Amino acid sequence: MRKYFARPSAKLLVAAPEDDAAVWRGDRLVVATTDTLVEGIDFRLDWPGFDFRLLGRRLMSINLSDLAAMGAEPRYALVSLALRGSMPSNDVDRLYAGVAQQAQRFGCLVAGGDFSETGGPLSLTATLIGRVASAARTLRRAGARRGWQIGVTGRLGGAAAGLRLLETRRRPATATERRWVRAQLDPQPRVDAGRALVSAGVRVGGDISDGLYREVQRITEPSRLGATIDVRRLPLASGLNANQWPLGVEDSEDFELLCAAPAAPMASAKAALGRLGVPLTVVGEVEREPGIRLLDGARVVRLRKPGYEHFH
Amino acid sequence: MRKYFARPSAKLLVAAPEDDAAVWRGDRLVVATTDTLVEGIDFRLDWPGFDFRLLGRRLMSINLSDLAAMGAEPRYALVSLALRGSMPSNDVDRLYAGVAQQAQRFGCLVAGGDFSETGGPLSLTATLIGRVASAARTLRRAGARRGWQIGVTGRLGGAAAGLRLLETRRRPATATERRWVRAQLDPQPRVDAGRALVSAGVRVGGDISDGLYREVQRITEPSRLGATIDVRRLPLASGLNANQWPLGVEDSEDFELLCAAPAAPMASAKAALGRLGVPLTVVGEVEREPGIRLLDGARVVRLRKPGYEHFH
Repeated sequence: MRKYFARPSAKLLVAAPEDDAAVWRGDRLVVATTDTLVEGIDFRLDWPGFDFRLLGRRLMSINLSDLAAMGAEPRYALVSLALRGSMPSNDVDRLYAGVAQQAQRFGCLVAGGDFSETGGPLSLTATLIGRVASAARTLRRAGARRGWQIGVTGRLGGAAAGLRLLETRRRPATATERRWVRAQLDPQPRVDAGRALVSAGVRVGGDISDGLYREVQRITEPSRLGATIDVRRLPLASGLNANQWPLGVEDSEDFELLCAAPAAPMASAKAALGRLGVPLTVVGEVEREPGIRLLDGARVVRLRKPGYEHFH
Repeated sequence: MRKYFARPSAKLLVAAPEDDAAVWRGDRLVVATTDTLVEGIDFRLDWPGFDFRLLGRRLMSINLSDLAAMGAEPRYALVSLALRGSMPSNDVDRLYAGVAQQAQRFGCLVAGGDFSETGGPLSLTATLIGRVASAARTLRRAGARRGWQIGVTGRLGGAAAGLRLLETRRRPATATERRWVRAQLDPQPRVDAGRALVSAGVRVGGDISDGLYREVQRITEPSRLGATIDVRRLPLASGLNANQWPLGVEDSEDFELLCAAPAAPMASAKAALGRLGVPLTVVGEVEREPGIRLLDGARVVRLRKPGYEHFH
């Protein structure tokens, strides 16, 4: 597997597979996150079209999305994989190739890692280390103010639609269905968009991997505020109809970014993201009254199961 | 669980549970490692005297030992735990308390982390970030020379003896047996000893968590050298007899440090470690001829199963 790890270089002084730990020249302000994918919970090997290379990419993407959500630049990754001894070496190889491929795509070195054996479901953890230029130039969950617009990048609901399709074990039959499945299996973290939001003056935001609804709570509750979201304005993935908006609001696993800002920086951000080919859509507003209100035009609508979080 | 994570401070600008990632002021030279404990492979809940607090400490210790093996100072930790939804919250609490306790003991902030749900064995990953003053002042596996002494810290074989006892499901009956079990369940990483080795001028070393034999290979093979180890000189844990030396050589899980150096720095290191209350014992010598030779006095002895490594 060592071929998939970065080699020692001017940037990476010591690569961990050769030593007990990796050594690199540090950055002034470090941004760090870790996240795990568990077989049977986050993915299934019997999904039609399942591919270990995409799984490796996804492991990186879920962590890269956390860096994106801070407006940070990815720098180094460490991966720790608990794999079954019976796993074909070709699958292990594809998993690592996916990790390495996504790392390279986002300018990040895989500096180290570890194997463990497991008798149960695969459990894959990555830790991503990035940097920001200054503590003030980051996206944070705290700091939203009443009257600010709420924006979201990309298109919503595709990953959830893809997951439902995968769970039927039916192969996707159309180009639209293939896009939905791709959104679930191979999400693209919004690293450039996160940095562009910060450059445009946006300071409040996060990713919506736990669902848009949950993230709106997270950026309004610290300030004891609330929000209204107009579900008709949600930029749904192509092929979804307007009634399917809950796919874009609940635990949707769209690795898009949510942000809140006054109208002027939101407009600058929209222009900047447009130049990256990423739509930024205003879907609601921060309000004084606590709680999240969902409107379908003038009608109040509700979610059956808002957001998703373990053990809280 | 948030009470067990570090709060934002002058050192930790953003704590991850409140945001998508942690932010801290970086160090000039960063040392980073990650390692996972898997239920059923690395520990069992039905071991007599099993305690989630000790498991949390052990998760930190296995990673702190990798920093120790580089001569690094621990700074920050991130933890990613895959837990069963059915796990009593009191056990989750104890697990986190153990992580926080060992972090604090070694001057390290738990800057962030993540929960995942699993339907299978618990899978616990920590990533440790530390620092060194200069790239030259680290312990590395490469660089050993012919004629150098090979030294090892602490006492060997206790963790392996403890593991055998735990696997019988019999409660330890004597103070000696309790020490063996403690060596397995609650190893103490040699962080201060690692830094003292570097200060004494030692530059080649690593930890022996995969077994002393395997680590002697790792520090001699990069230089195409070999070694002789005199098994009579191994500092066995108290209660073990001389014939039980394989417990201290195979996949022993003693979180001790092995090092190689000329006689003069080895003597300085022995004195410095003595002041920390940690024995450093010379057990062999680096030699020109490749391969590891084990001697019991004048007699050549062999291991049935030397060292341990997954998927290699």
